[in-house]
Amino acid sequence: MFEMLYKRYGSALDNEMRRIVASQPNQPPDFGTMLGYSLGWVDAEGAPYHQATGKRIRPLLLLLCAESTDGNWHSALPAAAAVEILHNFSLIHDDIQDDSPIRHNRPTVWKVWGTANAINAGDALFTLAYSALEGQTASVTPQVALELWRIFNHTALELTRGQHLDMRFEHQASVTVDEYIEMISGKTAALLAACAQMGGLIGSGDSTRAAHFAEFGLNLGIAFQMQDDILGIWGDPGVTGKSAATDILSRKKSFPVLFGLERSERLQAIYRRESFGDADVKESVAELDAIGAQEAAYQSEQHYYQLASAALDRAHPRGDSAKWLRQLIEELFKRTH
Amino acid sequence: MFEMLYKRYGSALDNEMRRIVASQPNQPPDFGTMLGYSLGWVDAEGAPYHQATGKRIRPLLLLLCAESTDGNWHSALPAAAAVEILHNFSLIHDDIQDDSPIRHNRPTVWKVWGTANAINAGDALFTLAYSALEGQTASVTPQVALELWRIFNHTALELTRGQHLDMRFEHQASVTVDEYIEMISGKTAALLAACAQMGGLIGSGDSTRAAHFAEFGLNLGIAFQMQDDILGIWGDPGVTGKSAATDILSRKKSFPVLFGLERSERLQAIYRRESFGDADVKESVAELDAIGAQEAAYQSEQHYYQLASAALDRAHPRGDSAKWLRQLIEELFKRTH
Repeated sequence: MFEMLYKRYGSALDNEMRRIVASQPNQPPDFGTMLGYSLGWVDAEGAPYHQATGKRIRPLLLLLCAESTDGNWHSALPAAAAVEILHNFSLIHDDIQDDSPIRHNRPTVWKVWGTANAINAGDALFTLAYSALEGQTASVTPQVALELWRIFNHTALELTRGQHLDMRFEHQASVTVDEYIEMISGKTAALLAACAQMGGLIGSGDSTRAAHFAEFGLNLGIAFQMQDDILGIWGDPGVTGKSAATDILSRKKSFPVLFGLERSERLQAIYRRESFGDADVKESVAELDAIGAQEAAYQSEQHYYQLASAALDRAHPRGDSAKWLRQLIEELFKRTH
Repeated sequence: MFEMLYKRYGSALDNEMRRIVASQPNQPPDFGTMLGYSLGWVDAEGAPYHQATGKRIRPLLLLLCAESTDGNWHSALPAAAAVEILHNFSLIHDDIQDDSPIRHNRPTVWKVWGTANAINAGDALFTLAYSALEGQTASVTPQVALELWRIFNHTALELTRGQHLDMRFEHQASVTVDEYIEMISGKTAALLAACAQMGGLIGSGDSTRAAHFAEFGLNLGIAFQMQDDILGIWGDPGVTGKSAATDILSRKKSFPVLFGLERSERLQAIYRRESFGDADVKESVAELDAIGAQEAAYQSEQHYYQLASAALDRAHPRGDSAKWLRQLIEELFKRTH
């Protein structure tokens, strides 16, 4: 589905992003290289790079929602560029914070240019995201432009709040399922909510209708994260491309694990062990299965997909793009079923 | 002068900033502590802190420029809060990038909470700066609100560009005086330019007049940095509170040093020495004096002050606040004369 959407919107989106990021006047060349590298356009020496780095899921969702209200997605390109650039800002800073050396099969920005430069490159993308959104002013009323800006501010703040909770959870003795949902709402779902809302608002000019799109995006984002959590434990390594039960080995506090830790003293005891190997992973998965953690995660995922689907109905999308939006939900949901 | 302005505007400004930063719904308490700490409101445990941390120069300048156009500064408080919060974002990230352990006599944010949290606290302030500016929408036309947003975007980008150049200069064999001015234009002067411009725009609603204010702020900022550079070498330790010739000991690439390195092979040779102590500092200062670096820096400083002063005349400030703006230039200029 995203492949089809990428074919439809991808090259116009890419042009818009390049216009914002690569055409800044007086930009020092090595600065441009860092920014272009993080967006997948060049290698670390500044030479063109031709392998895919990101799926551009967020801007594609925005454009699809815009098209589903009035049939015209071109006018939403500035906002689409803005959300993708914002997403990439957060990846650069996340990679420093998580000490991650690799992203999309390449060294991360801080690995290539050091932490100080990576912090600054992230800050520059953060700013450029706002510059991209500024371009939206030309095709909407001033009132809608200001509302888009408000949505964007709120979303950026949710991202930092979600990131704060995520980092805090690593050192927090116990995390509840509710706290977890609050964290992923900020860290993952808020930006998807903003994409759907901004697309709907640009297309329709109608804030109420856009609010239904926001609800659709938020619940879709939470459901998607739940699914990722399920696949991180029970996913087929041949399909996910990761080793089996990878989230258990890293003792990641994902939904099924938190569900399990809330209910099983045995799992708590396993998770307290100082060293943790394959045998502990097997024991953990067996315990999660015994207490029905997988089924509980499915139920929860389904609950959020249903909320997303109902909100989408209320947003009244139209035409082919409405069909594609519904198809998107179904396909995503199928990954675990 | 700034003491007087702080008495006039300070408490209203503080209230506005607290309204934005401290009253976010659902804010995790430790997150609020990090943000409040960086703004000087609380200590690292979250208890009220009563010592001054920042001089709030930027928002005071903004409010003064606003008052000088229409006599009403209250309506510019959201923008004033925005520039101060943006400034504090940049300090948090700068301190990580420069590995600085102390600011305003307290451990820096990264020293207290670690780099990962400090990156995120900076990102949150960056976002909150935009949220603060959003509040300006209520008291200006949508057109002015969008223009303020454009100025703010441009300024934030200049900040990251200036920071990039500053970091690059540390590893660059030779830096020209022109490159240096470009760097400080972004890193120091751009935000002062934005303060004057935004204040003038909010007060007058007139973009052309606001552009004169911008020119005033930009040149004031450059002149101020030149002065700092002079004081960093020839300043009286009893007045500056720093040791004598502190910028020479750290081999900082400030204006007089770059002027000297462009002209004196002897200074180049001294600066290439592996170890660098008090004798080298004395020798460097003697060489700078011999080639007239101090006088050249004075001349340059004076040049930018004159540009600032002429631009201020074109901006047509009025009333007491106009007198205070002119007094501000004179007092700042007196520091080195």
